[in-house]
Amino acid sequence: MTDQWFTERHTPHAGLTLEFGARLFDAQSAYQHVEVLDTREFGRMLLLDGCVMLTERDEFIYHEMIAHVPLFAHGAARDVLIVGGGDGGTLRECLRHTALRSVTLVEIDGMVLDVSRRFFPEVAAGLDDPRARIVVGDGFDHLQQSAHSYDVILVDSIDPVGAAVKLFGPEFHALVARALRPGGVAALQTESPFYHLPVLRDSCDSLGTQFAHVAPYLANIPTYPAGVWSFTFASNDVDPRTAIPTFEAEFLAGLNYFSPEIFRAAFALPRYIRRGLES
Amino acid sequence: MTDQWFTERHTPHAGLTLEFGARLFDAQSAYQHVEVLDTREFGRMLLLDGCVMLTERDEFIYHEMIAHVPLFAHGAARDVLIVGGGDGGTLRECLRHTALRSVTLVEIDGMVLDVSRRFFPEVAAGLDDPRARIVVGDGFDHLQQSAHSYDVILVDSIDPVGAAVKLFGPEFHALVARALRPGGVAALQTESPFYHLPVLRDSCDSLGTQFAHVAPYLANIPTYPAGVWSFTFASNDVDPRTAIPTFEAEFLAGLNYFSPEIFRAAFALPRYIRRGLES
Repeated sequence: MTDQWFTERHTPHAGLTLEFGARLFDAQSAYQHVEVLDTREFGRMLLLDGCVMLTERDEFIYHEMIAHVPLFAHGAARDVLIVGGGDGGTLRECLRHTALRSVTLVEIDGMVLDVSRRFFPEVAAGLDDPRARIVVGDGFDHLQQSAHSYDVILVDSIDPVGAAVKLFGPEFHALVARALRPGGVAALQTESPFYHLPVLRDSCDSLGTQFAHVAPYLANIPTYPAGVWSFTFASNDVDPRTAIPTFEAEFLAGLNYFSPEIFRAAFALPRYIRRGLES
Repeated sequence: MTDQWFTERHTPHAGLTLEFGARLFDAQSAYQHVEVLDTREFGRMLLLDGCVMLTERDEFIYHEMIAHVPLFAHGAARDVLIVGGGDGGTLRECLRHTALRSVTLVEIDGMVLDVSRRFFPEVAAGLDDPRARIVVGDGFDHLQQSAHSYDVILVDSIDPVGAAVKLFGPEFHALVARALRPGGVAALQTESPFYHLPVLRDSCDSLGTQFAHVAPYLANIPTYPAGVWSFTFASNDVDPRTAIPTFEAEFLAGLNYFSPEIFRAAFALPRYIRRGLES
């Protein structure tokens, strides 16, 4: 088979291009175009509507950073909710925390669960853990209709297009705040601060109406736009910039990106980002 | 004119692709292929041998980080040497430090100086400053033959190919150590820690034979491979991880990436990088 090149345009004028051999999966779900390509550089890659969701080689960065920063900042979480994250990577990282009692994952697109189990078994590993509760459904509706509360809520959504737009708005952020227990914390993926700074700014502004502590943090993700990604931490009780978490060496030894130093450093924002958030 | 796409392959299987209108300059110097493209997303872009050296939109990141981290760590520098850096961006950032008496820039390729003056006037601005001493020559030979000493030496080289290979080796690092005054510090560009970790590791090992304190630090640069770049700090007298520099608010307000928080955070290395340096 002749190799081909896949290009994701991060803007109309710039993109990432990756060589791949086989196209392992290609189907339209009820929600989006789902593809799996076998790339030469990054291993298998999951695409949703043509955007890179994860690759085998660098998925650890996103998943460690969306999970461990809020979980260590909280320090005593028992029950976690993941909105989105159907590939299972965020769930896998949560489950490393042995004190957790349950992790509820609400993914709107069942095809993502199926594809991850089939093509990304190491990412999907946690989906069949006894502590995992998998719900195929709309995360917004779940929070609106459920009376459950959580210690940690992670919003592992796609980009703010289509059905995901509402996961970036104030109504959803209010639902997140309502579902958190005292001492609870949330972390939300909030796009590339280089290309999508208005998304991060609007998210921070909206979260600021619900939470006393709102703090963006960053990670370098090679296959994501501009190589830098933002998450936003939100809590009424915990300020991650002054929190002093307890870390266990044995736990940390199993990780590839996160560390106590990275926990601190991730909240340091380059001036162009800080300035963009203030404007 | 029809738009075209330029692709830099960061590996044989992955690359960055950018749309451009005009090719403003295209010539072979005695050392390398020099091009200037007018890209849609990043403005004008300088390529050397097909590799992105700088773009108007994100050059501030590299230049602020290679200059201000060592200059603030030193705290009282008077005389600086830049090896390479013919575009002038590193020089421009050094010259913000008004206490500096001289900045000597040794660039092997006069065409880079000319092209930067012509197409990147905001980057090249410092080349004609009265404190700047521009030498067209080989940085290795300059250090070997000159009796001058410096407070800060910045190695702003191209990738370790061709004539630049020797700028990554122990003989050159010994020359840097010899040319530093007491209290002196150096910072060297040491490639992408994601794609070129062996370059960073070998640089650290080599510098470790000459310097008591060797500390890599990172910045997110969207147009560089994997979006993350490493610099390595080296000194016999200053440990930047414990240094407490003095920062002036007015100075900082003129910057777009660097800040006191970034100064600290840049030395926090993701575990995969730390592990790679230990192996």
